[in-house]
Order: sequence, then structure tokens, then C-alpha cells
Amino acid sequence: MLPTVDVFRGAIVESRHRVSVAVVDAGGALKARAGDPDLVTFWRSAAKFFQAIPLLTDGAAEALGITDAELGVACASHNGEPRHLALAARLLARASCGTDDLACGPHPSLAEPVARTMAERGEQPTRLHNNCSGKHAGMLALARHRGWPTAGYADLGHPVQTRCIAEVARWTGVPEGAIGLGVDGCGVGCFALPLRAMALAYARLGARRLGGVEAEAREAAADRLVRAVTAEPFLIAGTGRLCTEILAASGGRVVAKVGAEGVYSAALVGLGLGVAVKVEDGDFLSAGPALLAVLDQVAPGCVPVADEWRTPTVKNTRGMTVGRMEAHVPLRASE
Amino acid sequence: MLPTVDVFRGAIVESRHRVSVAVVDAGGALKARAGDPDLVTFWRSAAKFFQAIPLLTDGAAEALGITDAELGVACASHNGEPRHLALAARLLARASCGTDDLACGPHPSLAEPVARTMAERGEQPTRLHNNCSGKHAGMLALARHRGWPTAGYADLGHPVQTRCIAEVARWTGVPEGAIGLGVDGCGVGCFALPLRAMALAYARLGARRLGGVEAEAREAAADRLVRAVTAEPFLIAGTGRLCTEILAASGGRVVAKVGAEGVYSAALVGLGLGVAVKVEDGDFLSAGPALLAVLDQVAPGCVPVADEWRTPTVKNTRGMTVGRMEAHVPLRASE
Repeated sequence: MLPTVDVFRGAIVESRHRVSVAVVDAGGALKARAGDPDLVTFWRSAAKFFQAIPLLTDGAAEALGITDAELGVACASHNGEPRHLALAARLLARASCGTDDLACGPHPSLAEPVARTMAERGEQPTRLHNNCSGKHAGMLALARHRGWPTAGYADLGHPVQTRCIAEVARWTGVPEGAIGLGVDGCGVGCFALPLRAMALAYARLGARRLGGVEAEAREAAADRLVRAVTAEPFLIAGTGRLCTEILAASGGRVVAKVGAEGVYSAALVGLGLGVAVKVEDGDFLSAGPALLAVLDQVAPGCVPVADEWRTPTVKNTRGMTVGRMEAHVPLRASE
Repeated sequence: MLPTVDVFRGAIVESRHRVSVAVVDAGGALKARAGDPDLVTFWRSAAKFFQAIPLLTDGAAEALGITDAELGVACASHNGEPRHLALAARLLARASCGTDDLACGPHPSLAEPVARTMAERGEQPTRLHNNCSGKHAGMLALARHRGWPTAGYADLGHPVQTRCIAEVARWTGVPEGAIGLGVDGCGVGCFALPLRAMALAYARLGARRLGGVEAEAREAAADRLVRAVTAEPFLIAGTGRLCTEILAASGGRVVAKVGAEGVYSAALVGLGLGVAVKVEDGDFLSAGPALLAVLDQVAPGCVPVADEWRTPTVKNTRGMTVGRMEAHVPLRASE
């Protein structure tokens, strides 16, 4: 059966989203899959943990006094809620920078109720509201600590971006030269990789086990980031967002991170497994149900979130329920 | 080659939208196709011409003095620009109804600049702003003229909806009982049909040739609706919208109508052909490039719209161009 998320209107499938999945252990073995586990696509915001690790390994966090909560927001695609904004602003201040130094552009909150409330109050989103503002503040802190220019920190070729690419290479096992590069929605570099490599990086992140030379500081960094987001699941996303719900409901046993264009990655911490999901067409709404369908097979009962996350209802402009989404993503054991 | 609209980020395909197409002549012969021309999906707003025809055939337009421009808006998925609102309100008044009688819910304009301007002015969209308000006003006028209750006109089972199903059956050649039913975004019935049947209806609409018993009044109604939208292409959609651009740029040789969830239908008026397109995953943005890729093969040079419609750029939150969409929809002659 084709792995898909089907969108029903009444009893009829109106649209269909194809899904590919890789489930990998920390040793790099492909344990299960659906669709094409070697599909190459951009990791987008699901790479944020690995873009934050240099803050710790390179000493910026210690030197600048960066807190766990600030690290949590550096890994987040946050809602721009007051606590997110305050933490991102504090991280910016540690870099001796302000909102104008952020390269990311403003956009409405990823959580519709938050965006609506702001619009009703006539509040305009700023660069600090960008869901990536914590990542950007972290990059500025890294530049400040390393003595690199803060101007142009977002550009491919700037040492901050080069440093991030090196970190992504280390965790994914893909050589730097083989990582496809693009410009992300927020202006920094983003990384095209096979799903299998994304899943490996998350398996290693959850297991805090990288191995190889000079792995210790990196493993300690992974440990601190995972503990930071687990201690306060709100940080990584916010109110009404699946990443936050999964962390909270699983009690930290699953660390999941969404990316734009239908990407999701997750670490199954106790099991030492990593998961990478891509909705072929990039649909944002179907990535969550697809991930949950995978988690329910790999670790049944591990993520007790509300049914609405698994089978979202489709409503119309009158607020009537006119359909639903259903994920059918049967995993196959890998040969 | 798989028919797709590919979304590039830099030089790398990030997401891919699969496409199915049927091109049919007014006699019902399948002339060309891509993907699965028998795919069944909802026609959504691309059915509006056929939901408007009863206004003419059943005498409501004549009895209530409905103008061509009002008929144009009854066929539209409009932007909610001032002229659209005025025409929909006038049509409502001819039904002796007001905005509160509309069953459709409010939503921001389909044209982002229009929605942004309204938001900046603190203007809330009303039911009249719903892109379907002209269709709804027309349905109320039909109910008024036929002596049916106006209350509940949107519900499946109300004579207005039953009348629309009968009209759709006649033009598509699909028996009423074989038309799948759902509830549309605006609350009225919508119709699940094979792409091939949608294309047939548009071939007949463009040719004003239905054939069979009692066809004459229907053909005259089609003729008046096509002339109404061609006389003022703004009506069917509005500023910055592809349906309007296609009508204007082709000088009325192509009448194209978008629907939600990646649906497009078009009549190639002079050629006597109808086209139906479905983006499998329902993506709104890729339906236009897919339709244009089809039109460019069936009638080269017929739709001289700007390149941005064929190969839209992808921008990020900073306004940087970070990618583009490319439609690859090679048609195959049907066996």
C-alpha cells in the first residue's frame, strides 16, 4: 500500500499526500521505512538542534552565560509568544545585538490563534516574532564569541554557516561537499540530505552517542539541548503545537522537530532510534499525522496526544466539519 | 515522465506535486491526458458556471432583472474587491435578501494584497467577502423565483442543491446518482466527478453545444455566462488572479476557472475543447502553472500571460528569491 495522508471530504478522498520515511538506529542501520528512505530533500528547521550545538562545543554558551531556556529557544520554531520573545531577546543581548541585527524577516505566528490575537490587537510581527529568531540570536552569539563579524552572519560563506554545515556533516555522516545547500525561509543556509541521514542524526542526538574522534563535547552538547527542551516543552514550539505536545505527552521519550515543506524528524530517546519523514508535496498539515502514524508503529502508546493530532478534522468557512485527514503509513522492515 | 509541478530551492527539488489532466472534445472524446484522466475528485468552485445556469434556464434572471455583471459574479471565486461586493449585494437584493441570509462564512481575500490592505485598515471580512458570495446570492435568487424557502438553501436536500446536481449531471454526462456529494468550503453541495467528465462539461460550455433533449435553453444560458465573464474578466476573480489574467490575455479564447484543493477547469472556446486539471495533493499554488503547461501544448501562444504565472518564484520571509516552481506536464495523445 502506498504510504499517504488522505484528505477526505465526506466519504470521498479529495486529495492525497505521499509520504516517505526512514527509521534508523544510532549505528546507522535502516530499521524500517516507507516510500523512499533515500529521498533527498531539505532538512529545514528540523536541523536546528545541530545548528545550536556549536554554541556549546565552541564555548559561547559558557562564555556568554547562555541559559538552558535560551538554548531551548535557539532550537525552536517558536510561536512568537511572550516567553519565546523574551528568551530570544535575552539571547540577542548576550551577543550584544538587537532586533535590527536579526537577518530573518517578520511573519505571523505559526499558531493561528496567536496570529489572530495579534492581528485583532493591531500588533505587527517583528523579526523577533520570526519562528527562527532564537536560532538567529544563537548564530549571532556564536559569531560574537568566535570573533567573527556579526554582519552577514546569515550568508552562505560566512564562518557561522560554514561551522553549521560542518556540524550537520558530523551528525548525519554526509560529507560536507555532498550536502546540498539552499537558502532557508529565514535567510540562513539549509541542507539537502537523504531522509536516512536525517534519521541517523536524530538517533545519535537521542542516544547522545556520536562516536568517532572528538565526540565527547558534541555528545555533552546534545545531552544539554535535549534536557533543555524536555525540561520545558513549550520552548520548542508553543501553545497548540505538535512538537510541544509530543515532548510533553511522551515525558521526553520522543523529541520531535518539524520543518517547513512537510519535514519532520524525531528521536526515540530510550530506543536509540531516529525517524525522518517527508511529505513529498511539502504539505505542512499532513506531516504531523504522518509522523504520529510512524511513532505509533515504532513505539506503540509512547505519544498519548489527542486524536485530533492523528486524524485532524477539516472545517469550512462556516466552521462545519466537512472532512478529515487520515494517515496510512505502513512501515516495512528493511531488508 | 511523471507529470509534476516541481518546487526548487536553489538547484534542488524540495517538493513535488503530482498532476492529472484530461482534455476532452465536446463529443466526449478524450483527446489528450496526463496522469490519470479518470481520477475522481471534487469539482469545487470550478462547478460554478453550472450552478449558475439554472438562474437563466429557470427564468430567475429574466423575472428579477439580473444583469450580465451580476451573473459574472455568480460564476466567480472573487477577491472581495469593492465591485465584487457591490454586484453580489445587488444580486442579493434582487432575491429580497441581505448579507445575513448568506450561508457562507467570512474569510480573508484570496488575493494576498487585498487581504493585507483590509487587515492594515482593521477591516474584518464579512460573508459578502466570501469568494463564493455571488454564487450564494444567485442560489437565493433561484430559491426566491422558484418559490422555494430561502432558509436552508445551502443544505443538501434543499431544492436549490437538487437543481444544481441535476444541471451538473446534464453537462458532465454523469448520472445524478453517480455524482459523489460533499459539503464545500462555503457550505453548499460539491460534486465528485472524474476529470474526464469535468473536461467534457467545459468543452460543451465553450462550444455552447450540449445536444440532446431540451438543450436549447441550456446552450443559450452557457452563451450568456461565457459572454458575461468575457466582457469583464475582472468579475470572475479580480486583481492579480490567474482566472482573470487568462480571460483577458486570451481575449476570451480560454475561459478558465479555479477550484479549491488544486482543481482547474478550462474551455478552449474556438477549439471546442475542455480541460480538467487536478493537483493530487490539493496544492493551490501549483494548479495554475499546471494548467498553463497544458494550455501551452493544446493551444500554443493562446494565453500570453507573464512568465511569473508559468514559473512562479519562491520567496522567503526576507523577500529574497530562494527558488521557483516548474511545471512538467507532458500530454499524451489518448489511445
